[in-house]
Amino acid sequence: MSERPSASAEHVPGAGAAAADYEARVRASFAAQGIMALLGARLQTVGPGHCEIRLPYRPQLSQQDGFFHAGVTSTIADSAGGYAGYSVMPADSRVLTVEYKMNLVAPARGELLVARGSVLKAGRTLVVTRVDVDVVAAGEAKLCATLLQTLICVQ
Amino acid sequence: MSERPSASAEHVPGAGAAAADYEARVRASFAAQGIMALLGARLQTVGPGHCEIRLPYRPQLSQQDGFFHAGVTSTIADSAGGYAGYSVMPADSRVLTVEYKMNLVAPARGELLVARGSVLKAGRTLVVTRVDVDVVAAGEAKLCATLLQTLICVQ
Amino acid sequence: MSERPSASAEHVPGAGAAAADYEARVRASFAAQGIMALLGARLQTVGPGHCEIRLPYRPQLSQQDGFFHAGVTSTIADSAGGYAGYSVMPADSRVLTVEYKMNLVAPARGELLVARGSVLKAGRTLVVTRVDVDVVAAGEAKLCATLLQTLICVQ
Amino acid sequence: MSERPSASAEHVPGAGAAAADYEARVRASFAAQGIMALLGARLQTVGPGHCEIRLPYRPQLSQQDGFFHAGVTSTIADSAGGYAGYSVMPADSRVLTVEYKMNLVAPARGELLVARGSVLKAGRTLVVTRVDVDVVAAGEAKLCATLLQTLICVQ
Repeated sequence: MSERPSASAEHVPGAGAAAADYEARVRASFAAQGIMALLGARLQTVGPGHCEIRLPYRPQLSQQDGFFHAGVTSTIADSAGGYAGYSVMPADSRVLTVEYKMNLVAPARGELLVARGSVLKAGRTLVVTRVDVDVVAAGEAKLCATLLQTLICVQ
Repeated sequence: MSERPSASAEHVPGAGAAAADYEARVRASFAAQGIMALLGARLQTVGPGHCEIRLPYRPQLSQQDGFFHAGVTSTIADSAGGYAGYSVMPADSRVLTVEYKMNLVAPARGELLVARGSVLKAGRTLVVTRVDVDVVAAGEAKLCATLLQTLICVQ
Repeated sequence: MSERPSASAEHVPGAGAAAADYEARVRASFAAQGIMALLGARLQTVGPGHCEIRLPYRPQLSQQDGFFHAGVTSTIADSAGGYAGYSVMPADSRVLTVEYKMNLVAPARGELLVARGSVLKAGRTLVVTRVDVDVVAAGEAKLCATLLQTLICVQ
Repeated sequence: MSERPSASAEHVPGAGAAAADYEARVRASFAAQGIMALLGARLQTVGPGHCEIRLPYRPQLSQQDGFFHAGVTSTIADSAGGYAGYSVMPADSRVLTVEYKMNLVAPARGELLVARGSVLKAGRTLVVTRVDVDVVAAGEAKLCATLLQTLICVQ
């Protein structure tokens, strides 16, 4: 659960200079996502090419066995990847998810989900991200899901 | 938006005789998913190898542009595929999602989402499903997402 | 193994008028793919938004159990989807695969693979296709793999 | 192109003690894959939870622009992931690919492909792997594809 070292924009493969105000843009967009408030998710950190979103457990977020529902996991993961990508896009652009694939590698049973998205490749039109999701149970983090995501930058 | 013709169990490739009580099992499991109530989703129909889930729009379900969030779309789609698969599994089994991949083919802008899952291949351990999601705007349905999903039957 | 009814370009969701010479373009591109000759694949049919590629079995195409290797299956499937998409793109464009996901639903044991790609959604920049692959054993066709693929049109 | 540090079996999440003879088993299975010889691929290294396969360029491996065909990339990547997983499976088991998803993040233009698979999570029945593929052009390696793969252990 330690913070990952912050990356500078030059380390994002293919990314140009990120718009200076990326954090303000990402935070404004996150605040406009009604679903984040409904779930209770919070935007933890955003850096050039990275984004972390956290979500505490409540029974309303569950599947039939009481774990986080896979769709809930994917909801914060999709946004974590989307904002990782959006942080390296031009200031006047919009970001949309083209597709993603998620593997659920362990039951998401615990008190907190932590989704960390990072840019794998930033093209001019398409951005590919990877998102790892940890579930924290009794203070211990364990990988429960991983995504590979394609975004499109719309100008 | 017309109902698809109900399929009998023999038409599900690879499926054995579905447990006679599949609908009761699926409805009980659906009722135990806290997230379905939080989102406002309802289980429309369930047949051997098929399941349809509907979700009316509310601003709390949105991404930053006011459309249904991709994670919301995937939440009902994951359950629609999961219950399509669960309907052909033995009575004493549990279903878990192994992984899925979703393509978002049009913005999910409208008043209703309709997710229809169907079993593509039912093995003894793994079941593969396909889920199409329509968004209904001004009464007209349009495909907005499609998923390919792998489930595991746990006994 | 019967031919699917040929679709006219208007039936491809989102597609504009396909360039009149799409078949010549597709056949020229197919002939330029060195791997198709190495494998022994042939382009069976191409229509607006559809493409079928066939590949007879040889031991050189196998994985360790003697079935068609998953990579071989995906090679002809990727091209079948790619050319289905290319057939509805403008005459002066190029097609590249962005990504695909493939589920192997049955062992590819048999004398022939038949990959049928069709366009699910044709946008101006991105085209989404679905590809089903049958394996034919003792004259009987059975679904062995299915793909969901994203293409990009480069001009 | 430097070798990755070899991992001991304990570092593979979820893996039990790998069978002592995993390298012999993997090399025998690789030798039985007809397609590897047809393409000209070679098994470079195999360790508990890791596998690297290399493939020099030839025009017979190309798509229409002369790059490595996506299917060729996926063929060695599927085997690299499959053998990474197989290396941590019991001695008397077989490995089959359930599904994979591949993103092509740069054109595979160069003289060599290097696919490195590693186990992300080893369950008793299912194993999830990640495979990164570099293309080497003028001696310089660049990521051209990444896969997320699900394997099944059959006993």
